[in-house]
Amino acid sequence: MTLNEDTLIARYFRPLAAACPGAYNLRDDAATITPPEGADLVITTDALIADVHFFADDTPADIAFKALAVNVSDLAAKAATPIAYSLALALPRSTSEDWLHAFAKGLGEAQTLFGIVLSGGDTTVSRSGPLMIAITAFGAVPHGAMVRRGTAEAGDALYVSGTIGDAALGLKLRQEHAHGALPDVARGKLIARFLRPEPRLALRNALRAHASAAMDISDGLAIDCERLCAASGVDGVIDAAKIPFSPSVEALIASGKEFLETVITGGDDYEILAAIRAGEEGAFERAAAACGVGVTRIGTITEGAGRLVIFVDGAPLKLARSGYDHFQI
Amino acid sequence: MTLNEDTLIARYFRPLAAACPGAYNLRDDAATITPPEGADLVITTDALIADVHFFADDTPADIAFKALAVNVSDLAAKAATPIAYSLALALPRSTSEDWLHAFAKGLGEAQTLFGIVLSGGDTTVSRSGPLMIAITAFGAVPHGAMVRRGTAEAGDALYVSGTIGDAALGLKLRQEHAHGALPDVARGKLIARFLRPEPRLALRNALRAHASAAMDISDGLAIDCERLCAASGVDGVIDAAKIPFSPSVEALIASGKEFLETVITGGDDYEILAAIRAGEEGAFERAAAACGVGVTRIGTITEGAGRLVIFVDGAPLKLARSGYDHFQI
Repeated sequence: MTLNEDTLIARYFRPLAAACPGAYNLRDDAATITPPEGADLVITTDALIADVHFFADDTPADIAFKALAVNVSDLAAKAATPIAYSLALALPRSTSEDWLHAFAKGLGEAQTLFGIVLSGGDTTVSRSGPLMIAITAFGAVPHGAMVRRGTAEAGDALYVSGTIGDAALGLKLRQEHAHGALPDVARGKLIARFLRPEPRLALRNALRAHASAAMDISDGLAIDCERLCAASGVDGVIDAAKIPFSPSVEALIASGKEFLETVITGGDDYEILAAIRAGEEGAFERAAAACGVGVTRIGTITEGAGRLVIFVDGAPLKLARSGYDHFQI
Repeated sequence: MTLNEDTLIARYFRPLAAACPGAYNLRDDAATITPPEGADLVITTDALIADVHFFADDTPADIAFKALAVNVSDLAAKAATPIAYSLALALPRSTSEDWLHAFAKGLGEAQTLFGIVLSGGDTTVSRSGPLMIAITAFGAVPHGAMVRRGTAEAGDALYVSGTIGDAALGLKLRQEHAHGALPDVARGKLIARFLRPEPRLALRNALRAHASAAMDISDGLAIDCERLCAASGVDGVIDAAKIPFSPSVEALIASGKEFLETVITGGDDYEILAAIRAGEEGAFERAAAACGVGVTRIGTITEGAGRLVIFVDGAPLKLARSGYDHFQI
């Protein structure tokens, strides 16, 4: 690291805060946010570490994009409108200016897509450690309107947005550089789903209107649905035949039944799992269609004590593990 | 790490969030803060890495206390009232439950002292990295009332709270385990100043009423005063004879003139540096005395272009370096 902190901030991060009046051009010790009147601030924190949450040799732009996207995905699932984010960065000593330039560019691309700006943060150099990125993102909802995780009720319909498992397959492709079975276009799309998740911000009004509970799917559909059920004190029942898959994932599962488990426990989907109030399924589907996001009913919430059952051809699926556990590395 | 993430959170962090209604017992994907009506939210982020910002073998309670204190110190300098904080933690794989227990205890002690609660965060395990703690702290000020860094004006009086250099001397004592020259009581006090900074929250109303600019002193009086001057586009003039020192630091400086530089560039003071509007010095001193915090006038803000001059016996002091630079490690 040949730069000092002030130069690094001026060169790479100040432009990312230009549209945030409360960032004071990153020249103060703190930022301010003036929340919209009557709003609650929704706050989420996700930290990513090299070789746990991403590959150290992913492109810096992809790493930056993903770090911001996974935070904004939490805001989306909570039906919040993004406002700003704070960035804590521990850089390895070997970090180059080229790397920083590309990293800031990736953050900028993500900011523009998600409608969020940098409000502040802290940059440090780690003597020996891996790259670590901790982001705290801020959004707004009308007072009391955050969509919770633990408020699903028996009778709700279980929905997911988009398709499941593309990122898990993308990760496999990212790990095994050669993979002859897929055409290049499909390969590229799947790897992009892993590298650059797309927070489903467009769904937030539909969620606010119709969801009794929601969360984003980050560690795998199975484990995250279990978490929603456990937090709500209800059971979940999913029909595997209803889970929406892309043609590539369909083909993978057709090639071997064991791949169903791979894709529903693989994580990194960043789709939204929502419990939609009974009777409001049609209205939710229309609202989602109106904002261009596909949603699919995959099951139902029932009375229970926090278990999830996934039926395959009428029989409950037994999973070796239900999702990605960052703690077991 | 033998715990899974859910158990770790339940056992050590949930109790720290019990008094934060918007933390939802750390059972949701995000937290909410409902800011006081008409308030701005003040947001600050500070990240600490083992063996850069603290010693990996400091007690876990001290590490936790300091991580929260340095963030709250920024809130104090900005005249904000603490509300809540988000904690991103990258734990080494070898972290024990005893360590976590003590760490949470230290956070709890700091929370109680500072009137702040845990609202959420993210805990990860680092494959090979050092302990890293990134905290984003939230406070409130009346709309537009955050005390800025870059708004000092010519004619303002420069003040500091407390005494300067105790933490720098404490760090020396922490590094050199034997130090015969000081009585044990003084040694303990100085090391405590380094390990457990005391955010000057009590000063916030006095700052809001009388300061045109303020910041906390984290990297050293000299460099931080330079930063305040540079951000404000003014010069600063400090009379070294006026800088308030504890008896231990006085004795150190008396033993060798070179130690003056050590203590004004050593950092970790977490005292407040404030530019007080001309004519309001007396009122500021009375307001500070009323809340039990000593403040001392050390100089003046003058017209200029962002330079700081420290006079010693009438001659400007030349510093080899003006403060601690976390980037040069």
